[in-house]
Amino acid sequence: MRLDSLQYARRFDHVSGSAIREIFKVIAQPGMISIAGGNPSLAALPDAEAAEIARDVLRDQGKVILQYGATEGYRPLLETMQSWIPETLGFDAPAVLPVTGSTQAMDLLCKALINPGDRIVVENPSFLGNLQCMRLYEAELVPVESEEDGLDVNHLERIFRDCRPKMLYTIPTFQNPTGRTLSLAKRRRVAELAEEYGVIVAEDDPYRDLRYRGESLPAIKSFDREGWVVYLGSFSKIISPGMRVGYMVGDPGLIRKCTIRKQSSDLHTANLTQAIVDQFIRRGLLPDHIRRISADYAAQCDTMLGCLESFPEGISFTRPEGGLFLWVDLPEGIDAKDLLKKAIERKVAFVPGTHFYAFGGHENTLRLNFSASTLPQITQGMDVLRNLVTEAAEA
Amino acid sequence: MRLDSLQYARRFDHVSGSAIREIFKVIAQPGMISIAGGNPSLAALPDAEAAEIARDVLRDQGKVILQYGATEGYRPLLETMQSWIPETLGFDAPAVLPVTGSTQAMDLLCKALINPGDRIVVENPSFLGNLQCMRLYEAELVPVESEEDGLDVNHLERIFRDCRPKMLYTIPTFQNPTGRTLSLAKRRRVAELAEEYGVIVAEDDPYRDLRYRGESLPAIKSFDREGWVVYLGSFSKIISPGMRVGYMVGDPGLIRKCTIRKQSSDLHTANLTQAIVDQFIRRGLLPDHIRRISADYAAQCDTMLGCLESFPEGISFTRPEGGLFLWVDLPEGIDAKDLLKKAIERKVAFVPGTHFYAFGGHENTLRLNFSASTLPQITQGMDVLRNLVTEAAEA
Repeated sequence: MRLDSLQYARRFDHVSGSAIREIFKVIAQPGMISIAGGNPSLAALPDAEAAEIARDVLRDQGKVILQYGATEGYRPLLETMQSWIPETLGFDAPAVLPVTGSTQAMDLLCKALINPGDRIVVENPSFLGNLQCMRLYEAELVPVESEEDGLDVNHLERIFRDCRPKMLYTIPTFQNPTGRTLSLAKRRRVAELAEEYGVIVAEDDPYRDLRYRGESLPAIKSFDREGWVVYLGSFSKIISPGMRVGYMVGDPGLIRKCTIRKQSSDLHTANLTQAIVDQFIRRGLLPDHIRRISADYAAQCDTMLGCLESFPEGISFTRPEGGLFLWVDLPEGIDAKDLLKKAIERKVAFVPGTHFYAFGGHENTLRLNFSASTLPQITQGMDVLRNLVTEAAEA
Repeated sequence: MRLDSLQYARRFDHVSGSAIREIFKVIAQPGMISIAGGNPSLAALPDAEAAEIARDVLRDQGKVILQYGATEGYRPLLETMQSWIPETLGFDAPAVLPVTGSTQAMDLLCKALINPGDRIVVENPSFLGNLQCMRLYEAELVPVESEEDGLDVNHLERIFRDCRPKMLYTIPTFQNPTGRTLSLAKRRRVAELAEEYGVIVAEDDPYRDLRYRGESLPAIKSFDREGWVVYLGSFSKIISPGMRVGYMVGDPGLIRKCTIRKQSSDLHTANLTQAIVDQFIRRGLLPDHIRRISADYAAQCDTMLGCLESFPEGISFTRPEGGLFLWVDLPEGIDAKDLLKKAIERKVAFVPGTHFYAFGGHENTLRLNFSASTLPQITQGMDVLRNLVTEAAEA
């Protein structure tokens, strides 16, 4: 029998093609200025420190690190997190599970909670990687409208009341893709609504430490009384994404279910990368490192915003207080996908905003990343974009 | 609303409690002789080499290793595998996907292929971790009988014909839990049947390099003409389980589906652990390392077999040619779970065989591990077991 008679699982029926992947292939071309991805800058990756720490931990704890570990996490990291989370995030950590990047946290949550047809409320637009994850679990996505200060809580309440969703997925701080931040009052309200209607909130917060202006806000999790909020943290943006170390904090019963699920997902996260993150924190390297990369990213963000000021009339854009992204609305009628084709010819890549909407549309939007490019690259890339937008607006 | 009103996904309904986890908590007690797990010996873990390699790769390729990687795998490792697989495994590698331990390979295969109610044929007994994974995907498990030279291929054909399964899961070499090896003729036959009936074969082969006697056998995959066989390999038993690096080899279309699934499972396997495995191979360290640990394990295996010779009449056991485990049948009427309770009081732990059967039963069987204990520990632990078995047989 030929293999082409093989039938794949139905859950794949819900997963669309990979326009994004095509873009990422293009990024890899030499000479391309990429304001498309969400990569840290190379300067932000602490390779010298990691080399020293890796050698040290393998010398001192090599047998433990190379042996099977516990699904529950590498013990020294768990101990570190027990005090680090209250100190830096401002809420207690009744249960913490280190995961293989916070990508895995989302997968485990869906696996633990989502039956086919269950509804998940998602910001509109939202991080497309996790939208894809939810689709693989055959969740029905319910978009909640987005405002300047984050999701519309009145709309959210109507959805909670009328649609009885299982979960809300939100990125409250310097959101991907818009760069927007959920206000303090709305954070409190989201926690209240979750408790009132019995909806799990997946609070995905990988960018919170990358703040360039304004005051730090408490997490939604800090307003959570009954355990409906699960906090997803990550070291990808502040230490290294290639190490794949994130964590989830939540109710012990729910974390336990996710731990059991993790047993058959990858048994445990690599001990070595957990140990490197642990030592990075224990050696006190993180605060200075965050200050240094934040200063660089702030300059990159400001440069990109400065370039946008000279774009033609009729476009608007977000002014993020941190994170990696900003969001541009072009005049109606301009299709960012067409713009991208022309931009790629001129060696500049970005991501059309339509891909971040659960049900598409919004063709006149785009996401720009300022973390992965140098200041001259940003200026050069934005010059190309400005010319293309001007051409398109005049056409 | 209180969190105890939260409903978990139905897929958890199929997952039983964790008798095994209770055993593993016991193992952690100080002074316990564990012949229960499947850990490599501490002497087999190359901590000095890993420390040096980790520092080197982070110095030389630190920015690449700490940055986001491709879901498809760390490029240098992929290049290495392209020649290493044909040379050491004896079959071509049309597509290879590095995974976060071969645990993840099983998860990705189920995710790609299994709809609720789909049938998976499993050896009886089989590796319980992967049985749990299949249950989470709501597969219906169909046990195929096990013989001295591996699964019963006539029984397998009847199952293929009558039950129309989606997949066969088999550990052909030094099987977990029995230590048995599928004969050459049967390997060829399994590949033929898979093609004839259109059934995916998941060939889980983590122990193949740990051979202490007899001739190495070609993988089932080497008889595969149409791509129905997916080979699951692992570096857990020959370099380090704590690094979580395995791989899957198969048809490019199927590997592609698994790659897409992996995007939302953990995005990619940590670059650092992939790079360490890559350098371990490139530096030519693997053959000597395998020879050294195999010599140790062979002695441990022989010691355990020697102890079993002096057990009372009426017990039988496998004589594995490699791997980490052997399997004991006690006289009918003796329950290995009762034996375990008494053994734990005397500071010895093993795993009752019943847990490895998809539908339980076989209470008079047990799995013993010889890799994680020293020769004196094996002798001491087996003395305890012998006394308990003798007592039980006389009762």
